[in-house]
Formats: sequence, C-alpha cells, structure tokens
Amino acid sequence: MNVNNKPYQTIWLHPGDATIVQTIDQRQLPFEFRIVDLTCFEDARSAIAGMVVRGAPLIGVTAAFGMYLAMLDHRSHEDLNSYLQNCANRLKSTRPTAINLSYAVDRSLNAISGKKDINTKIDVALKTAQDMAKEEIEACRMIGQFGLTVIEALAKKKKGSPVNILTHCNAGWLACIDYGTATAPIYLAHDRGTRVHVWVDETRPRNQGARLTAWELAQHGVPHTLITDNAGGLLMQQGKVDVVIVGSDRTTLSGDVVNKIGTYLKALAAKDNHIPFYVALPSSSVDPSLQDGLEGIPIEERNREEVELVEGLTGTGLERVRICTEETPVLNPGFDITPARFVTGLITERGICEVNEKGILSLFPEFGKNL
Amino acid sequence: MNVNNKPYQTIWLHPGDATIVQTIDQRQLPFEFRIVDLTCFEDARSAIAGMVVRGAPLIGVTAAFGMYLAMLDHRSHEDLNSYLQNCANRLKSTRPTAINLSYAVDRSLNAISGKKDINTKIDVALKTAQDMAKEEIEACRMIGQFGLTVIEALAKKKKGSPVNILTHCNAGWLACIDYGTATAPIYLAHDRGTRVHVWVDETRPRNQGARLTAWELAQHGVPHTLITDNAGGLLMQQGKVDVVIVGSDRTTLSGDVVNKIGTYLKALAAKDNHIPFYVALPSSSVDPSLQDGLEGIPIEERNREEVELVEGLTGTGLERVRICTEETPVLNPGFDITPARFVTGLITERGICEVNEKGILSLFPEFGKNL
Repeated sequence: MNVNNKPYQTIWLHPGDATIVQTIDQRQLPFEFRIVDLTCFEDARSAIAGMVVRGAPLIGVTAAFGMYLAMLDHRSHEDLNSYLQNCANRLKSTRPTAINLSYAVDRSLNAISGKKDINTKIDVALKTAQDMAKEEIEACRMIGQFGLTVIEALAKKKKGSPVNILTHCNAGWLACIDYGTATAPIYLAHDRGTRVHVWVDETRPRNQGARLTAWELAQHGVPHTLITDNAGGLLMQQGKVDVVIVGSDRTTLSGDVVNKIGTYLKALAAKDNHIPFYVALPSSSVDPSLQDGLEGIPIEERNREEVELVEGLTGTGLERVRICTEETPVLNPGFDITPARFVTGLITERGICEVNEKGILSLFPEFGKNL
Repeated sequence: MNVNNKPYQTIWLHPGDATIVQTIDQRQLPFEFRIVDLTCFEDARSAIAGMVVRGAPLIGVTAAFGMYLAMLDHRSHEDLNSYLQNCANRLKSTRPTAINLSYAVDRSLNAISGKKDINTKIDVALKTAQDMAKEEIEACRMIGQFGLTVIEALAKKKKGSPVNILTHCNAGWLACIDYGTATAPIYLAHDRGTRVHVWVDETRPRNQGARLTAWELAQHGVPHTLITDNAGGLLMQQGKVDVVIVGSDRTTLSGDVVNKIGTYLKALAAKDNHIPFYVALPSSSVDPSLQDGLEGIPIEERNREEVELVEGLTGTGLERVRICTEETPVLNPGFDITPARFVTGLITERGICEVNEKGILSLFPEFGKNL
C-alpha cells in the first residue's frame, strides 16, 4: 500500500543490487519511516529476532529471504548441508510460536536441497522467497475481494455516509506483504471510492493499533480514528460501528478464533448490539487438528515489561515510561479466544464461510483429511 | 487505609495547626507518597483544578475544606458575602461535571450564612467539612459491610483459595475519604482474614488502575495483579474471576450504570461467563430523574492528549511519551453505560438491591418523590 504517496510492500529485493533485501524498520513506526538493508543472513535473523519485522506472514517471507542470503554468505570450505541446517535452526528459534516461520524455512531448505550446483541453489532460494511473497499477497488480495462484498452491502444501506469499521491490533499490510488480512477489504473499498472510516483500537500492551494500524491507514489515505481499547463498546451502543473486522492468529476447525487479547470483548459488544463481527484470515491460520479453542489452545503469557513500560516519543527520541511500581504483580496474556458463536463469518482467500466445521470444510475440503 | 503501615485518610486537618489542611498529591502516585499542605483558599482550589485530588467524594470534601480556608483568609475590609460567593463560584468552576463539588460548596455556604459572628462562621465551616468527611467514610464503610456478604459467600465456595475479584478504574479509598466504594468490601474482607485477590484493570487512558488502585491495594497488603484492559475477558473464560465489583459515576433509577469507559465490556464478559457483576455506590450517585442511561446521559468527550500521551516514570522523573503521530485523529469518550440487565446487584450504604426501579426504591423510597 502507499507510503508518502508511493506504493510499498513490506519486503523486497534491492532494485539495484540483487544481493540485498530491503524492509521497513517497524520498531520506528509511526514516528520514522526507515528502510533497512538486509545484506547477510545475520541481518535477516536479527531483523526477525529484534522485531524489526513482525506479523506471521512477514516473518515467514523474511525467513525465506534469510535462507537466500544464507546461500549467498556460504563459504566454499564449509559443509553446505550442516551450514544450512544451522542457519535454519537459528532462524526457527527467533520466534518459536510463529508457524509460518518454520514452514518457510523448511520449504526453502527442501527447494535448495533439490538442486545440485551452487548457483542453481542460490536461484531457487531467491525464487522460493519471491514465490512465497507473491502467494501471501494473492491470499490477502482475495480476502480483500471477498470482504469487499460485506463492506459494499453495508455501504448501500448507509447511502453515502461512511461505513464505520472497528478493528483491533494490526492485521494490516505491515503484518503481511501487502493489503493485510482485516485491512484488505478496507483498502480495496477505499480504492474503489466506497466511503469507509476505521475505528482503530490502541491495542495494549504493545499499541500496534496506535502505532501501526493508524499509521498505515493514514499513509494510504483511509479515514480513521484512534480510540482506547475500552471505548469500542460505547461506540457500538451509540450506533457508531457498522461492522467489526479482525484478523486471527489461529482458528479451530469449529471456528473458535484465537486473536490478540481483547478481541473477545469486542465480539461480545458486537453481539449485544447486533453488529456483524467478521474474522479475515488466510486458510494457513486454520488449525484443523483443533476443535475447542478454550480447551485446546494454550495462551502465551508474555513479558511483564510490555504492560509496565509504555514506549513512545519524547523530545529526544523513543523512550519507555513506567506506569506502575516495579513491585506491582503483572499478568500479560497475549491472546484470547472468541467462540465461534460470536463470529458472523470467516473471510478467507476462497470466500466467506459459516463459522463451523461444515462451513470451513465447504471451502477447504482438504482439512477434512485430518479428522 | 494503610500507607507505609500507618492508617491514612485522603484529607485531614494538620495535627499541630488547625489552619492547615493536608492531603496526598495523587499526581505523584504510585511513585512518590507526597503529603501537601493546603494553607489557603487558593491552595485548595488549585488542588482540585490541578487534580492533586480527584474522585467525586474527595473533590467535594476538599471543596468544603476550601470554604473553611476561605473563611480564614477573609480580610475584614472585604464584604464577606460577595467574597464567599466569589470563592464558591471559583471552586465550582474547577471541575464542572462533579455533582459532589457544587453540593459541598452550597452546603458550606448555607451553614456559614446561618451564623452571625465571624468566629462561629469559621467554626461551622470547619465542622461542615469534617461532617461531610465523616458521612462519606460512614457510607463507604456501610457499602463495605454489605458487600462483604457477597465476598464471604464466595469464599465459602472457594474453601480457602482466594476469592478473585476484578475491578476497573479506581473506586478506591483514594477517590473517597476512606475505604472506597468498590474496594470497601475488599478491604473489609482482607482485614477479617478472608483471602482475596484483585485483578486490577490498567484503565486507559489515564491508567487509574495501574497507578492508584494497584498502589492502594499494595499499601494495605491486599494481593492483586495488574492486567491490561483487554485481558479481563480471557481471565473470565479461564475461570480466574469469581466476581466483578466496580464503582459508578451516575446510576439511573432503572439501574443503568454510568462508569469509566470500558466497564460495559467487562459486564458483557461477566454475563457470558456466568460471573456476578456488582456495582458499589453511595446513593448520592443515583440520579432519580433519569430512566434510560443510553437515552438520558450525554457522554463527556475528554481531551485527546489523554490517549496520545502516556505518563510514567523515566530515570529523570514523570514524563509523557507520545504513542501515535500528532496528526492521528483521536476520540476519547470518558464513560460508558452498563445496562441494568448486566448488573447482578447494587451495593449501597443501605444494603444490596435488585437492579431496577423497584429494587432501588425499596432501599431509597425518597427517590420516588421525584417521579
């Protein structure tokens, strides 16, 4: 999507030097748009580990580019197989919970090992990363196309006044390669001239809404308003929300949705106010081995520093301020579970389906094989 | 309640000098416990205006002490009546939305004007402030006594493991003179040896939970854990919350509860997980002229700075960091409305009642006169 009126993706090959990969340093957003060069395997590994890049799809593609850079870095006196295996392991251990990461690394390893000479191995490593990026973009674009029908139908009812969409966290293009998941229908609607306005949840503790979603919507010119996570319920009571669209980290075959902590509260409020609540997700986020979200999925407890320290800009740069005493006990669960009964529909790359096993299998019959 | 193992109230007469009123500078909490002297009318006025003190009951009592200090400040060449009227107006304009403030000022004015000589006027101004403080304390203590029955009943079921109570914002003793409203049953249970544990919502945008509620519970030795506002729903899904107790800024005769933004979301989650949700409030917070909260009560929209700037401690002192760009549109509604159907009971100074007009009138028949 656009940044400073120029179209960008979140990761790309340097236009003048095919041995360099470029990405956006997301730690500096929204205050500085800084492009960083990944010139070697270690650059890619530390970009993932240090959260220069984040979001499962982007982490996966960055890892695939990391394997390409690893091939370029390889010195002829080293054993290639053990070298690559070591790189793969080091990549996988950066963010152990992201499924896309190990999938991407394994896919790259397989592609490389299928070729014989070193230059073909380099070529196939690059092509794998580029293919994965294209596939991610295409999945998001299709989610956008299908989600667009939801927004267009609401726009008809609103007769020219904007469709008000609430979203939580950042399921935007910054988490993906382009379009995003929850944001894809929004960008497509906006680009077609359909009036939309987005309520952006701040999304404590890491403030991905305030820092990333608000920034990417602003750069692309989409009208939006930042609110605290506490405010969405009132706005729904007041009739100021027409639809909720969020992403998902993992969804069970029964349609229970694991997403950023706080999503469940917005789903409850949407239900109480008869507002449709959609989850936009690529099918790679469906876990066909799971039925009941509350029973099956352990919820990651994250670092207390995310809660007690808030990062933001001061006169001198990015700083963190402490909002409670060091002695205050803190619990920081990262995700919650929105039961299927609160979800109006799942917007996937193959269409919108009912939120139950039958609905999911109607679009993705291949998931039935795991039963 | 206790601070550094000594019992405190939020405002008191200097023990060695009856011309000085003392209070706690709540802007410095939880990082510094600073007692400030209010030595003149202007000190009291600016303490309210500058939010050295906050919370409707404490604002009211501080204003009453302000009228006492105004009497001490009065110089004999000034016309007393116009001088007092001017002081009263200046106090009332500090925080126009707090009903307790104008009530306290008018009560003090009436008491003063009923006496003839200047020394009796001074005495009655002081006595009025002290009476109001005592009345607030007694109302909170009674709320605590009645609420205690709720906690004790849950404690029996828990058979020795702590009763987990979730609260939002600060309806604690810092907002009152002692005990608090939502916290009163918690302190009384704790002091009786009943095991309790409090989930403290951070309460964005002003973080009263992280800064005030967590601090006062810690000082009194009550076990607690700070969580983001997003986390409470998950904890309820996981069976980690036994009861929710919150305060109220205003409650309609039908039992709709206006309270800090985000309260409604917790009420929805409590209902979905079959967890009792209580509102603790003095009857002065009931507005018998209102029936439907959503129709009747305008919701205050507060300053955007509360959302975009987060205050906390750095190495050099209290500072504010910016969490979004200056161009980001922001909406900051201060309160939401929890419809009566989500509230299990109202805990008042006269007992616990059903959350409807009949229930409220059964305890407070005097409200029926307004119908």
